[in-house]
Amino acid sequence: MRRDANEGNAMDGRQQRGDRTRQAVATRAAALASTDGLAGMTIGQIATELAIPKSSVQVAYPRKEDLQIATVAAATDIFITAVVAPALTLRKGLPRLLALIDNWVDYISNRVLPGGCFMGATFAEFDSKPGPVRDALAATRTQWLGLIEREAAVAQAAHEVPAELRAPLLAFEIDALLAAANIARNLHDDDNALHIARDIIHLRLGIDTVGDW
Amino acid sequence: MRRDANEGNAMDGRQQRGDRTRQAVATRAAALASTDGLAGMTIGQIATELAIPKSSVQVAYPRKEDLQIATVAAATDIFITAVVAPALTLRKGLPRLLALIDNWVDYISNRVLPGGCFMGATFAEFDSKPGPVRDALAATRTQWLGLIEREAAVAQAAHEVPAELRAPLLAFEIDALLAAANIARNLHDDDNALHIARDIIHLRLGIDTVGDW
Repeated sequence: MRRDANEGNAMDGRQQRGDRTRQAVATRAAALASTDGLAGMTIGQIATELAIPKSSVQVAYPRKEDLQIATVAAATDIFITAVVAPALTLRKGLPRLLALIDNWVDYISNRVLPGGCFMGATFAEFDSKPGPVRDALAATRTQWLGLIEREAAVAQAAHEVPAELRAPLLAFEIDALLAAANIARNLHDDDNALHIARDIIHLRLGIDTVGDW
Repeated sequence: MRRDANEGNAMDGRQQRGDRTRQAVATRAAALASTDGLAGMTIGQIATELAIPKSSVQVAYPRKEDLQIATVAAATDIFITAVVAPALTLRKGLPRLLALIDNWVDYISNRVLPGGCFMGATFAEFDSKPGPVRDALAATRTQWLGLIEREAAVAQAAHEVPAELRAPLLAFEIDALLAAANIARNLHDDDNALHIARDIIHLRLGIDTVGDW
């Protein structure tokens, strides 16, 4: 009995170490993929940055596709922690909607991931490649748009926000402006783009604060 | 003298054949890069699709970076022919602006390039990689935004379009909506996104035609 219990503990220990390695690899991969893409990131880079052997990365994720899917999940967790969770502590409707936008701008400004928006860096890479990685990215985008839409709908129902566009279309527009700001910031080193996008969104939400950019 | 002239003709012939190969390679590369990216496309694919030896591609563009820059130029030419040139035959201001948007939607719908928007496929790939390829992409984006901005400014001066947003910001918003439509179309197989983006743009231009999507 004791021997069985010890064996069980040893297996649990190996399992836990394995889980920690898998988590560390996926989190580091999210940072790398934000600049190099999910196809561009290499096992060698991840191993070097974590100071572990390449073989440990390969044991954690035997197939690159598994690593790519885990990387999408890790990036989504980082995004939820930084952008979504703090907003969900606020009242539904306009306060949450504004917080989602502010938190997104801060998340990009503060370079939580070195390449800015993980989704912006990877959507274009996989959007013409049907398969489980594209499915994981599409699911994440759908969740994000759904979240904006839900709060926009509450805000419109409470007459906090103009209803000239139905909530799904308003969510589409808000997301489009944020994604374009990420591109402009990265491609032209133009940090103002983040503030411009937020100002245009505020205008479209009926909060007239367009600065003199 | 005659011998010199013949040598000159022979050299001209080689030069012309070389130019044709370079042009064919860059044009084919633009199509491939629209799905696989500028880093992802390979010399082998290009050679196979053009039914020429890999060595001919390598002679045409000895460095991949040269090929990538030529590919950006080829994609820009394709875009100008399909989207920009027909719009420039119309009156300045709102007619040109609407034609640029319509032509862009048709260009993506008709899959002039298989991956949809070349810029959408490649900006994210290079926006964190400073260098001549990123510079070429940034210059193309600046030209495109400048074109929209110029027509938006004329339309606003003629009171054809609301002036609640200054023309550079209106151009930023129009481009953002088109880029998001390309992503949604490719990532979710959602062709409606193109029509949604056009409808939102029309609303923002004061032309109220938002359909029941």
